[in-house]
Amino acid sequence: MTVKQLSLPSLVDACVRLGVPAVGLWREPVAAYGLEGAAKCVRDAGLTVTSLCRGGFLTAIDATDRARALADNRAAIDEAAILGTNTLVLVSGGLPPGSRDLVAGRERVADALSVLAPYAGERGIRLAIEPLHPMFASDRCVVSTLTQALDLAERFPSDQVGVVVDTYHIWWDDTAPAAVSRAGAQGRIHSVQLADWITPLPAGALNGRGQLGDGAVDLRAWRELVEAAGWTGFIEVELFNDGLWAREGVEVLAETAGRYLDCVFR
Amino acid sequence: MTVKQLSLPSLVDACVRLGVPAVGLWREPVAAYGLEGAAKCVRDAGLTVTSLCRGGFLTAIDATDRARALADNRAAIDEAAILGTNTLVLVSGGLPPGSRDLVAGRERVADALSVLAPYAGERGIRLAIEPLHPMFASDRCVVSTLTQALDLAERFPSDQVGVVVDTYHIWWDDTAPAAVSRAGAQGRIHSVQLADWITPLPAGALNGRGQLGDGAVDLRAWRELVEAAGWTGFIEVELFNDGLWAREGVEVLAETAGRYLDCVFR
Repeated sequence: MTVKQLSLPSLVDACVRLGVPAVGLWREPVAAYGLEGAAKCVRDAGLTVTSLCRGGFLTAIDATDRARALADNRAAIDEAAILGTNTLVLVSGGLPPGSRDLVAGRERVADALSVLAPYAGERGIRLAIEPLHPMFASDRCVVSTLTQALDLAERFPSDQVGVVVDTYHIWWDDTAPAAVSRAGAQGRIHSVQLADWITPLPAGALNGRGQLGDGAVDLRAWRELVEAAGWTGFIEVELFNDGLWAREGVEVLAETAGRYLDCVFR
Repeated sequence: MTVKQLSLPSLVDACVRLGVPAVGLWREPVAAYGLEGAAKCVRDAGLTVTSLCRGGFLTAIDATDRARALADNRAAIDEAAILGTNTLVLVSGGLPPGSRDLVAGRERVADALSVLAPYAGERGIRLAIEPLHPMFASDRCVVSTLTQALDLAERFPSDQVGVVVDTYHIWWDDTAPAAVSRAGAQGRIHSVQLADWITPLPAGALNGRGQLGDGAVDLRAWRELVEAAGWTGFIEVELFNDGLWAREGVEVLAETAGRYLDCVFR
């Protein structure tokens, strides 16, 4: 999604040329390219698919809406398996129209997970609950903290449900480091994503994530934190940023890879 | 600030006519009108001044900047005393340029409070630390949760330093209700403010607070929560909203008073 301006073959080609060994994919561009073709494209290039984004949106009250959401998530699990990744990222969903009850919303997410977790487990897919920044609590994700995500995940086996550690969403939270350690001890860190925090936020707040190093997040410290918690997997960079999307994609990918080395590892 | 389009005399007149018995003031319009004149205006009308907004911005590293901030906060304390309120609201300040250390920023706030709290106490003024929504953590306020605010306040006597409970900033936080109870038990709820949460956020995220009843916050539940924690004082409505500011001020004040009764009390 960081370079959504690139077609799937261009993305794969650029990753190979730049030495980027793994990539996270999103459902919409995969579907647009064709699921089987996308799977073959990344497989033939030798790329690891770190995760598929995204399932979720499980907070509906209406029975028809809930059934539709469950069906869509089963489809996402199947797609993840075909793409060869073991991780499906879940964004919980916001408050349904007229609701002001975040607690009940999170309970409906738990109810849905009780259906989806075994389905995912049978297919070798781990569901990764992503807490989104509290500024998205009403309209996008009732799970706002890593602790909340972990409280949900803990109701299920760790090989079925875990959490996403995304610096953009949790960097401000002084309780998040302890939650990272707790998640690591349980084997529930299923995905690690990086973005920097920059201001001012754009209208809608969605597409203002900062290039690594441009903002307020101590990315190196977070990398060390997840490693101390046992994380040995790939780390994704996920930048929703209108400015980056307006630029030439391969250039943005190269810049991002460079920032990753400079701001996260050195 | 909800009706900043009104002059101070117009605001006071409208409050009296609408039966609004108390008002929170901001330093800038008070200074523009004249401090002594403003104090006389509200006093002659029999209005209670619930609080003065705002002091704070105490996170600077540079010694000159820190000294300037302390001097400004002493001035704000003096102004509060002249206006006849017992509460000065503090917004902590964000990360200084180049800093990525929220913990150190909060410690500098504590250092400043150790100077300001006795000064305030001698003048009968309570400092009220306001946690701002995490979306303001980098540029405006390193104190993002009521728990963090209370952890800071607890280092000082409760008649010198307490917290602000503002629904706009903490409504999403499932740990906030316990923090409200804890603050109440310590006599540290020094201000209660209401605004609703609406989306989409405007660019900059600052002036998109929702009119009571328009958004996702269960305002009645929060009112009951602070009352259960022992709060018997006035409740402020603080709406930063470009749409409301563009309308006729008395009309907005009347609407807000009506919403307050309909959405918070009934």
